[in-house]
Amino acid sequence: MKIPFTKMHGLGNSYIYVDGFHVELPEESLPTIAKQVSSVHTGIGSDGLILVLPSNLADVRMRIFNKDGSEAMNCGNGLRCVAKFVYDKKYVHKQSFEIETKSGVVTATVHPDKDKHVESVTVDMGEPVLERSNIPMETENGGLFDEVVYEHFRVDGDDYYATAVSMGNPHVVFYQDNMQDAPIHTLGPKVTTDERFPEGVNVEFVEVLNEAELRFRVWERGSGITQACGTGACASVVASALNSYVKRGQEVTVHLDGGDLWITWLESGSVLMRGAAVTVAKGHTWVELDV
Amino acid sequence: MKIPFTKMHGLGNSYIYVDGFHVELPEESLPTIAKQVSSVHTGIGSDGLILVLPSNLADVRMRIFNKDGSEAMNCGNGLRCVAKFVYDKKYVHKQSFEIETKSGVVTATVHPDKDKHVESVTVDMGEPVLERSNIPMETENGGLFDEVVYEHFRVDGDDYYATAVSMGNPHVVFYQDNMQDAPIHTLGPKVTTDERFPEGVNVEFVEVLNEAELRFRVWERGSGITQACGTGACASVVASALNSYVKRGQEVTVHLDGGDLWITWLESGSVLMRGAAVTVAKGHTWVELDV
Repeated sequence: MKIPFTKMHGLGNSYIYVDGFHVELPEESLPTIAKQVSSVHTGIGSDGLILVLPSNLADVRMRIFNKDGSEAMNCGNGLRCVAKFVYDKKYVHKQSFEIETKSGVVTATVHPDKDKHVESVTVDMGEPVLERSNIPMETENGGLFDEVVYEHFRVDGDDYYATAVSMGNPHVVFYQDNMQDAPIHTLGPKVTTDERFPEGVNVEFVEVLNEAELRFRVWERGSGITQACGTGACASVVASALNSYVKRGQEVTVHLDGGDLWITWLESGSVLMRGAAVTVAKGHTWVELDV
Repeated sequence: MKIPFTKMHGLGNSYIYVDGFHVELPEESLPTIAKQVSSVHTGIGSDGLILVLPSNLADVRMRIFNKDGSEAMNCGNGLRCVAKFVYDKKYVHKQSFEIETKSGVVTATVHPDKDKHVESVTVDMGEPVLERSNIPMETENGGLFDEVVYEHFRVDGDDYYATAVSMGNPHVVFYQDNMQDAPIHTLGPKVTTDERFPEGVNVEFVEVLNEAELRFRVWERGSGITQACGTGACASVVASALNSYVKRGQEVTVHLDGGDLWITWLESGSVLMRGAAVTVAKGHTWVELDV
């Protein structure tokens, strides 16, 4: 089957985008197509497949398939690219619009340059969840509904201090004086499966550069070290406001391995994430459906 | 810079092909372009870049750039794709023609189906070199000009039997009763840098399935385990003829991790390698030259 595609990335998190306004892919073949286009050896190469579709609930709808063929809930880097995709194609004409995902409707705002090309996009990532029991994190010292801010956290007899935040998925932040010394390879894999986090946790290492800038690295739940984790970057800014390292309501630059994100925790509750969306290639690809 | 491209693969060894008959890329930017298009995160994703060019010496010319930007000598999987590329585009009209590479001129023969689509290509890989001193392998038991056929070879106190062949690059073959038990992860990294091979060596593990079929795995010099090594598959057929496991002059199917190759060691000397060449995608990509 010949399929028209666009490859886009946000901070190196890349997907093959298919225009579901004009191309219909057979539902039963979507896992096969996702696996094939994602292989760098025998396909194009990506982290997965994203279908951009009409929506009954919002301005557009996106469906994400991982490179193993499973359908994913949501992806911040993918959302930015979908917003650029539909604005560049003039499927939407306003700069702020709604995108339906499997985990709900999200508001995106594109920032076009003078030639109307979108280079960055802001996505409303929703409100953080701070109560211990809803992160979820099991109680050790504090109460079920307490926030977990710079709380004593022992691992293998060593002392650490944890700040925990959910952005729909659980995150725990450890502050570092110097990112070069951050124990990512040792603490990351241990804490991500620590029994105090019954659903696992994304483990973040944050160095506060100044009150408007953080250096960030992550051990992602189920993936290990990754180049960019949008929800993790949001969680790190919320955690840093809770610890008074940054000011709530002001934009904070987060330097991830894959590039920068600009994040604001609004006084009204939501976390806004702004970042780049880049078109890499456009063309046609061929996939075998009967394999 | 907007660049028209074709992505092709042979046994999962994939490259971005640019038509140098119609597109001129700035010479000084070729390493940058190769690096960018090869990144699966921020480019298309591949093992490198191949330019298909007019030639003064042969019917066409190819230049290969690895994903690190360095220029490579030659690549069997790439040669097959170049042959398909120029035949499909009707830059050549005969089925056998010559391709100029950095390491010499090679003859390729395309096998089009009834619709004139090329699905497999045969490449003349030249004559093997069998003399010990030219592989090169340092003498232990035999003479400088002897062949190295099932020769006693001790590694860390264990006994193995080595057959060594050069196909322009050095190979050593160890026969296995059962590929599942092949000591690839232990013997591979040790032998590839063994001092008896002053230029290093590609280490091949071969199970003889019958006199027309081999199972093949490889630890490639400088790369480790790879999906497919064309010169290694040729060396394994030559080694198997020297050991009388297969008949010289007859086609042998070699099952590699990445797919099958069909190899014939002609009585007249050359080794012919036939295998698939697959077009994955066509389109345009964008690269930043001033980085």
